Amino acid sequence: ARPRVGYFYTGKSGTQLLTENLKKLFVKDYQSIPVVISENVSVYDAICTMFLEDVGTLFVADGASHLAGVLSRKDLLRASIGKQDLNHLPVNIIMTRMPNITFCERDDLLIEAAKKLIERQIDALPVVKESPGGLEIVGRLTKTNITKAFVTLADE
Amino acid sequence: ARPRVGYFYTGKSGTQLLTENLKKLFVKDYQSIPVVISENVSVYDAICTMFLEDVGTLFVADGASHLAGVLSRKDLLRASIGKQDLNHLPVNIIMTRMPNITFCERDDLLIEAAKKLIERQIDALPVVKESPGGLEIVGRLTKTNITKAFVTLADE
Repeated sequence: ARPRVGYFYTGKSGTQLLTENLKKLFVKDYQSIPVVISENVSVYDAICTMFLEDVGTLFVADGASHLAGVLSRKDLLRASIGKQDLNHLPVNIIMTRMPNITFCERDDLLIEAAKKLIERQIDALPVVKESPGGLEIVGRLTKTNITKAFVTLADE
Repeated sequence: ARPRVGYFYTGKSGTQLLTENLKKLFVKDYQSIPVVISENVSVYDAICTMFLEDVGTLFVADGASHLAGVLSRKDLLRASIGKQDLNHLPVNIIMTRMPNITFCERDDLLIEAAKKLIERQIDALPVVKESPGGLEIVGRLTKTNITKAFVTLADE
């Protein structure tokens, strides 16, 4: 008799297995460190921070360290060709602010975060944790993180 | 006797099937339309084009319509906080130029293009076609395209 070794046929197609594999990927396993500035920082200093930290999105925190705003390269580029003096323009004038910020949590599925990035046409999501009186910023999830996850899928 | 229906066991794991699925995705199926400017355009006009077209990367063509340079939001933001007059600064002063441009072709695997984006730390690749005397710009492949592909994988 033939030995009964190896896998059982599970009735699942390649696509179903693929979808199952994607459901094992979580935000917390792919997120980056957030770069956070305070809301009275000037636009000029924010641009310098963006270059120093080499990120495409900055998060803005209020006095209680809660998420108050998001600044993209696009926001900063728009401000930089305006007429204002960037040294005296605080970021809270130009940032996207709560409740218009789209965010995610560490335990969210990576695929759900990717959908938010596409649907809202943004480059990055703050990863947050609910805390009394606001949202604590615990990470940064970008299209770069999703692209890395995509590359990882093929390498496994 | 049992009827012989359904699938055969192929000896492949879910991960192998995943990798095989990824090898069916090509640049040409996910690329976007390129936004191309000529190399004597001013940085100011390039920034306006970037906002009007709502893209993160512009490609620069020479007089023969061949790929000459790439301009990212980061390049334009850096220039915009400099001391120069953006109306009189041509993009060919600040663009990344050949042979330092990383590109891909329509028939490349999407996963290979994704690896280039990660390894070179860039947001977009020009999709090009070899033509006499240079590279013709036929598309634009970005981390947004990869993120969309990632979302599509889960929806199928």
